[in-house]
Parts: sequence; C-alpha cells; structure tokens
Amino acid sequence: MVLGLGTGSTAKHAVDRIAELLHQGKLKNIIGVPTSKKTHEQAVSLGIPLSDLDTHPVLDLAIDGADEVDPFLNLVKGRGGSLLREKMVESVCKKFVVIVDESKLVSHLGGSGLAMPVEIVPFCWKFTAKRLQELFEDSGCVAKLRTCLEKNQPFVTDNGNYIVDLYFKKDIGDLKVASDAILRLAGVVEHGMFLDMATTVIVAGELGVAIKHKQ
Amino acid sequence: MVLGLGTGSTAKHAVDRIAELLHQGKLKNIIGVPTSKKTHEQAVSLGIPLSDLDTHPVLDLAIDGADEVDPFLNLVKGRGGSLLREKMVESVCKKFVVIVDESKLVSHLGGSGLAMPVEIVPFCWKFTAKRLQELFEDSGCVAKLRTCLEKNQPFVTDNGNYIVDLYFKKDIGDLKVASDAILRLAGVVEHGMFLDMATTVIVAGELGVAIKHKQ
Repeated sequence: MVLGLGTGSTAKHAVDRIAELLHQGKLKNIIGVPTSKKTHEQAVSLGIPLSDLDTHPVLDLAIDGADEVDPFLNLVKGRGGSLLREKMVESVCKKFVVIVDESKLVSHLGGSGLAMPVEIVPFCWKFTAKRLQELFEDSGCVAKLRTCLEKNQPFVTDNGNYIVDLYFKKDIGDLKVASDAILRLAGVVEHGMFLDMATTVIVAGELGVAIKHKQ
Repeated sequence: MVLGLGTGSTAKHAVDRIAELLHQGKLKNIIGVPTSKKTHEQAVSLGIPLSDLDTHPVLDLAIDGADEVDPFLNLVKGRGGSLLREKMVESVCKKFVVIVDESKLVSHLGGSGLAMPVEIVPFCWKFTAKRLQELFEDSGCVAKLRTCLEKNQPFVTDNGNYIVDLYFKKDIGDLKVASDAILRLAGVVEHGMFLDMATTVIVAGELGVAIKHKQ
C-alpha cells in the first residue's frame, strides 16, 4: 500500500503509530509518501520505507489533519505551511482520511476566524497580498504575510515561497469560484482550501469519535 | 508614466529605444517596471529609472513581444522563460501593447506547433509534467521539461522554478477552461497563455505594419 503521510501535530501521531505497527509486524508492505521535509525526516528516523510522487503518481490512502472542516468535508489546511505538497499528494489518493478534534468543525470555511493560507512567490509579495485582499474585499478580508516568530523574517515554505494568511470577517461564498479566482492571480502558487478531496473525516469529541464519509 | 518593460528579443529593442528617447529628452517622467532579472539589468545599464509592483501596483502601459497571437489577441508567451513576472506586470496595465512579426499569428493558441510553457515547482516535477500531459490527452499533448542546452540541466526561472513545455497536436478548445484546469493542478505556478490581456498588437509583415486593437 502506498500511503500519503500528512504534516502537522495530528499527522505526526499517525506517522508514529504507523511506524509502531510496522515494527510490530501488524502492518506490512507500506510505502510512505511524505508531504513535507519535516514528515520526510520523521519517517526516515522511524524507518518507514519512502518513495515519491514521481515514482507513485497514484496513492492508495493518505492520512492528515486539517485546520477547518465544513459540513461538506471541504477543508482548510496549511497553517503548518505545507499546503502545496499536501495538496499534490492528497489530490491523487484513492482515499483521503482526515483526523481532527471537534474544535475544527466550522459552518463555512474561514468561519473559525483563523487564517486561510495562500502560498505565493516571494517576488513583489506585497503586490500579490494586496490583490488577494482586494479579491475578498466584500468579505472584509485582511491579508498578512506569515513571519517566523523569532526573527520577524518571512516564513519560507519547503518550496522557497512565502505564505499570505487571509482572515475573513464574512463567508466568502461559493468556494470553487473563490478557489479559481485565487489561482488566476499571477504570483499565487496554491491555496489552503482542499475542496471535494477528503473521503472520510474522523472527529474526536468529548463524547467519543465520530466518522463522517463523503456523500 | 509607469511603464512595464517586457522580456525577450523584441522587448529588448523597445527598451533600447525607450532609453534613447529618454536621453534625447523626447520622453520624460518614465518609471520602468521590468518583467525579468534580464530586463532589469538591461534597463539599469541604460539608465532607465526603475520601480516595482509593490510601489506601483497599477501601470499605465506595458510593451512586450509574444510567441503566438490568435485572432482574439490572446497570446502565448514565456518561451524566454519569464512568463510569471510578465503576467504579474502585464495583468495590471491599463494598456498592453504587443509587438510581433507576422510569423507569430496563429489561428488558435498552440497552433504554431511550438511550446506552450508552464512554470511549475521543482518538487516532483515528473509527476506534474505527467498530470499536465494527461490533462490534454485528447489534444495529443506531449509535455517536456525545459533544459539548459549547454548543461542538460533543468532550466530554472527567475523564481527558482522549472518550466514544462506543452506541445499540442490538436486545438485545445476553450482557452479559459484550459487555463483554469492547468491552474487547478497543485504544483503549477503559472502558464504562458495570456488571455484577454493585450489591448493592442502591432504586427510587422512584409507589406508593412498592421495595428490590431482589442474589440
């Protein structure tokens, strides 16, 4: 089985557990495809056999966390900064299982008031941030360059790009329209909305675990 | 006047001429916004005052060449490798003047049999090239990584990315649909179709110069 390995605090636990089951002999014939340099390092240190999308352009399953999940299982991802490689891997998985706690459930994407990240090229990033903000003017959008807390320098992705975090005061409406509008801006590399991709979402709540399948 | 300075053999002549007119005092108050590192260097060496999109997010005019022009003034650009910065600049110009010779006129984009370039992130480029080729399978598309002739190494853009050149045997159909489909692939940064952007195309032919304005 070719398995996409997510990135972030939740995915880290899943990768640890996969390694444990492999070493116990309870899982066999697993090849992992990591979605970030960080997960790559973790998986190597745990002895999980790895490959990449060039060799395995279709995956059986991916497991990852998410920052927001709407009622249709659309996601916001990338607050950890790995949205591009996550989307490359998770868009070619036969099954994509997302694990969250119930605090991540929202009525609409952007609804948590937290960031919706967009990966952009560093060249004239202020210009691109301005255009992104203008695009969602009606939703009271504020665009902020993500910085590294320690150094007040731009956060740089695994692909050498910057991230602009979008904050919305109101619902942005039709997500597919919003997605295409963002992608049409020259300077944008990818955004953190994962639409129509998750096949299963596992939600941990105070009263137990709920499993939601894509309709 | 804030003026976008194109990239490539045709634009080079235009930039030379702008500098000449500036030095003769026939042009005044020009601020150039270059569309590549190469044009930046040329303009600096010629003493043209420069700025960027962060400072000037709207331009009065841009002048550039193109690789293909269709009857609706849609373009293919980027065989020189500067398509992303060209598109960033030329998408926010009040007027965008394109200069070509008549060999660049085509009945439909891709029709010259030459490359339609797509800028992609280096990470798993073979995977992205494969997905691009599959996207246009019905048009007999072949996707090839652009390499540097001397070293047989990947050509690297000003933004640190690679370029995949798409060759089509047949018309790709609705260009806006094709554009969105390309941009939706995670791993794609930008493509070389400049749709609905040129306001004027100046065509040099054997019998003289023709000027076409956007309808």
